Amino acid sequence: MAAAAPLDRLSLDFCRLAEAYAAGLAPEALLAEVLRRLEAAADPAIWISRRPPAEILAEAARLPARRAAGECLPLYGLPFAVKDNLDVAGLPTTAACPDFSHYPAETAAAVARLTAAGAVLLGKTNLDQFATGLVGTRSPYGVPRNPFDPAMIPGGSSSGSAVAVARGLASFSLGTDTAGSGRIPAAFNNIVGLKPSRGLVSNHGMVPACRSLDCVSVFALTVEDAAAVAAVIAGFDPRDAWSRAAPAGFSARVPAPAAFRFAIPRAADRDFLGDAEGEALFQASVARLQALGGIAEDIDFAPFQEVARLLYGPFVAERTHALREWLAERPDSLHPVTHAIIAKGLAYSGLEILDARQRLQALAQAIAPLWSRIDCLVVPTAARGFSVDEIAAEPIACNTALGRYTNFTNLLDLAGLAVPGGFDSRGFPAGVTLLAPAFHDGLLAGLGAALQRAADLPLGATGAALPPAAAAPPPATQPMVEIAVFGAHLEGQPLNPALRALGGVLRSTCHTEPCYRLLALPGALPRPGLLPARDGVAIEGEVWALPSAALAAFLATIAAPLGLGQVRLQGGPALGFICEGGVEGAVDISAHGGWRAYRAATAAAA
Amino acid sequence: MAAAAPLDRLSLDFCRLAEAYAAGLAPEALLAEVLRRLEAAADPAIWISRRPPAEILAEAARLPARRAAGECLPLYGLPFAVKDNLDVAGLPTTAACPDFSHYPAETAAAVARLTAAGAVLLGKTNLDQFATGLVGTRSPYGVPRNPFDPAMIPGGSSSGSAVAVARGLASFSLGTDTAGSGRIPAAFNNIVGLKPSRGLVSNHGMVPACRSLDCVSVFALTVEDAAAVAAVIAGFDPRDAWSRAAPAGFSARVPAPAAFRFAIPRAADRDFLGDAEGEALFQASVARLQALGGIAEDIDFAPFQEVARLLYGPFVAERTHALREWLAERPDSLHPVTHAIIAKGLAYSGLEILDARQRLQALAQAIAPLWSRIDCLVVPTAARGFSVDEIAAEPIACNTALGRYTNFTNLLDLAGLAVPGGFDSRGFPAGVTLLAPAFHDGLLAGLGAALQRAADLPLGATGAALPPAAAAPPPATQPMVEIAVFGAHLEGQPLNPALRALGGVLRSTCHTEPCYRLLALPGALPRPGLLPARDGVAIEGEVWALPSAALAAFLATIAAPLGLGQVRLQGGPALGFICEGGVEGAVDISAHGGWRAYRAATAAAA
Repeated sequence: MAAAAPLDRLSLDFCRLAEAYAAGLAPEALLAEVLRRLEAAADPAIWISRRPPAEILAEAARLPARRAAGECLPLYGLPFAVKDNLDVAGLPTTAACPDFSHYPAETAAAVARLTAAGAVLLGKTNLDQFATGLVGTRSPYGVPRNPFDPAMIPGGSSSGSAVAVARGLASFSLGTDTAGSGRIPAAFNNIVGLKPSRGLVSNHGMVPACRSLDCVSVFALTVEDAAAVAAVIAGFDPRDAWSRAAPAGFSARVPAPAAFRFAIPRAADRDFLGDAEGEALFQASVARLQALGGIAEDIDFAPFQEVARLLYGPFVAERTHALREWLAERPDSLHPVTHAIIAKGLAYSGLEILDARQRLQALAQAIAPLWSRIDCLVVPTAARGFSVDEIAAEPIACNTALGRYTNFTNLLDLAGLAVPGGFDSRGFPAGVTLLAPAFHDGLLAGLGAALQRAADLPLGATGAALPPAAAAPPPATQPMVEIAVFGAHLEGQPLNPALRALGGVLRSTCHTEPCYRLLALPGALPRPGLLPARDGVAIEGEVWALPSAALAAFLATIAAPLGLGQVRLQGGPALGFICEGGVEGAVDISAHGGWRAYRAATAAAA
Repeated sequence: MAAAAPLDRLSLDFCRLAEAYAAGLAPEALLAEVLRRLEAAADPAIWISRRPPAEILAEAARLPARRAAGECLPLYGLPFAVKDNLDVAGLPTTAACPDFSHYPAETAAAVARLTAAGAVLLGKTNLDQFATGLVGTRSPYGVPRNPFDPAMIPGGSSSGSAVAVARGLASFSLGTDTAGSGRIPAAFNNIVGLKPSRGLVSNHGMVPACRSLDCVSVFALTVEDAAAVAAVIAGFDPRDAWSRAAPAGFSARVPAPAAFRFAIPRAADRDFLGDAEGEALFQASVARLQALGGIAEDIDFAPFQEVARLLYGPFVAERTHALREWLAERPDSLHPVTHAIIAKGLAYSGLEILDARQRLQALAQAIAPLWSRIDCLVVPTAARGFSVDEIAAEPIACNTALGRYTNFTNLLDLAGLAVPGGFDSRGFPAGVTLLAPAFHDGLLAGLGAALQRAADLPLGATGAALPPAAAAPPPATQPMVEIAVFGAHLEGQPLNPALRALGGVLRSTCHTEPCYRLLALPGALPRPGLLPARDGVAIEGEVWALPSAALAAFLATIAAPLGLGQVRLQGGPALGFICEGGVEGAVDISAHGGWRAYRAATAAAA
């Protein structure tokens, strides 16, 4: 392990903070350092409101006792920020509209889960007003400075949340994503932007933009970190009308498959709006995915673009619907661009809305066969970066251009993950986004983590290197059954590939109680069997986890005299290989203590 | 078996026709008899167009050769009718609007599947114009006569399709169901009305009413028959934007569970609109379900009623959307009531549509927990019957009253099955409807078939008795694994209930090859074990099928020295109980030939 960085240069990624905490760092000391960084950052436009430092430090100071009391704190001591369209009791919610400012009674569901998991909230971040925009400049609270080039926009609408993470002021942050607000700022800040499946994370306590499409999103320095946050905040919530229960077996991250297929827009549909380096940067990400086992397929991107155009066509009325009372009563309090966009929705008739919905349905159905052919769709996160001046000159046209690769996502019920994709020759970052049908978040995280590792870029604007890979992916939540194996299914033995092919994962080595003899069974394929015996010894084996759904298929491969039953392991009884009675011609090899040692000895003798 | 009825009194239910065909009846002869019945029925309002008799007879005459050529014809020789809002090439599509009449180029997807499966189309049936209405009187083609009382409405909108089946003119028919058009006419005609899950049956070739809600529906004399039709017409169709793939394991009918829970509207919410006998008839159906193992729960019906009201509130705009060009160009060609209803949708703004959608989502979310508590919701199909004169006096109010128990169904994404529920003292039928979340069609068919059998009413208006139960429900399509058991898991033995609780189903008795000794194992729970031996005998056992998903749970209950592995049965190797070696203190009981005989002998000796 590399020596830990001094506190004032410590990366706030989850891996390094976990190491620092394990090495004795107090959460209170870390939060004091973060508060120092907030002051030093010298960009007030990142924040709309901040928690009092004393409150932050006191909460951090309570964490060790909470852990000692047995609380499960998967986000122990991780400082985070929240976009100011998510409620936090005790802080005003403004949605970047000062007149809208009010103190909510209740904290948003996702924020409450984070605090309960040990994360420490710093404050509320700036955004494009009412989360309408992909630019980060539509706010009376200023423009958070892009850490790579102050002349460029930070991206929006979740501007402050992205910049806070990129600059090492927070370990992660929450944004929201209706049209791309959780992905565009990730691209322009060289960080990860995770847009979970619609309904996976509760929207309870969010200022709505388009209720049927809004998603809480996560910014983090690494894909692993973003997935860890998603695992905490995902969950059905009946208080949110659009909340959905994830299917059984859902996991926020699963191991990346060794082989997969992905689609990319065909060359004619890849438009970088004049950015000469965009194509090369995108192709670099494609090449990394291919090196990871991906097979690329060019597709016609036109149906996706037509869906994208619907979002700020008739579907803009859903934004208008969410803000209709505000629009009627306080139109002057809106940002002029926001007002222009939202007021447009008043003009749509019911029939036009239904027409758009019918068209969307037809487009989604036309696109659907793609998803049975590929594991994910890969697109640039944004066509290119825009300067603050460009946006000021053409606020709506530039915004529309920014949504080219994002606007269709929620209308098509996809999950999305924006991952850093390298830097252009001026040092400005580009991003790449992986997309898959709803509830395939875990697959995106698995592939995205591998892609980020392959790119091996510094984290955000912090200069820190990617931390070592998390020791193991979080366990899949599909029902698994553990099986103790002692012979040909052991790692490296002839039947092990069959076990892996069924989804088997090595969990640990094991030893039986000293109550078995180990027999080498007769037959063409060398196999051992356990024989319960009074003069038994402890036999070495391995515990493998197999998806329960594959158990029947696995059992069908086991030939007599072996089978599955209860085996006495040190630590308790477990399911494992047993050997039926009545076997003739077997040789007692118990003295070797295990099958692998026996095989090694016989190989050496041969 | 009862003697077959003479041809002129033969019931057209699937069971009796299959028997008649098996006994040598030629399809051509059956269709000639059906054509005779059509003439004798003396109700031209049932039909809008009919196929030429010669064409019908020729198609029937080709069926034996098709079967002989190896075609799969699950609906061999079954005459059927199709509502005239479904296209059939060669016949006009009118939707009961003469000016709309046109000859479509292509036959509707569902109709094409039926013909391919051996069913023989008779013609197109009358309906409430553009499928808008639940009455059966909104048609310039007249009012199909209710077979139980000509003063009463037949119900709609699928009026002709229901009457044709009730009067024994067709084995089954297709309707459509957006608000209840596939269920209300079933109730008033004493037949079965199956409204499949939205998207399960392709709407390709249907004149749309509300595209996002429309469903092809099935009328039949028995639930088994309706489910058999559904099994043929169900299937994803990319030509229909709203088509959905059924989840893996979907089946149109599964066995009725031995125990289940169902909800009914609480007493205060059960309104029969002054029909004094409605409550007693409904309670009779509830009592039948209880006798079948159902546990009833009273629920607040208000949220369902609020959803129902949305359908002809803002959601009526979806009807307007489907017919907007017709409404603009040919308003005079519409039935005055239909015009009044559809024109209403022009007035809704986009924001009102979105408001209704948001409200629907909230109501659906509020109702959702119910579905994890119950297997189905049971409601009267209609509050009561209405006379033709009542409808003429109050066309819209009466129609609204008819939708009380149906209008919410498609908005809440439920499957529905209307089943006959007995007759009032005037001899007019009442219906009862079972409802469950989308893709639970199979469960509804299983319960509905049992309910119809428990009521044992004559079929439709034909006077024919319910045929014998179909030999066996179609096999469940969930993956099953077969396990040979030899001891405590045998039928009637102590661990058998645990096997059944996991979904185990007895498949057959079995015997091993003569290569095992049977041992009575020591321990508190009497259990045997198989020991492979040269001097073995054939041991009796049973093969049980267990859902593969339950295998891990089952294995976890098996204590040493037993386990699962390969057992040599007469007929080949199979998965079954094995016994590990090294057992001490066991007694050889092979002479009994099996565990049950051994237990009987020891019980007799005790």
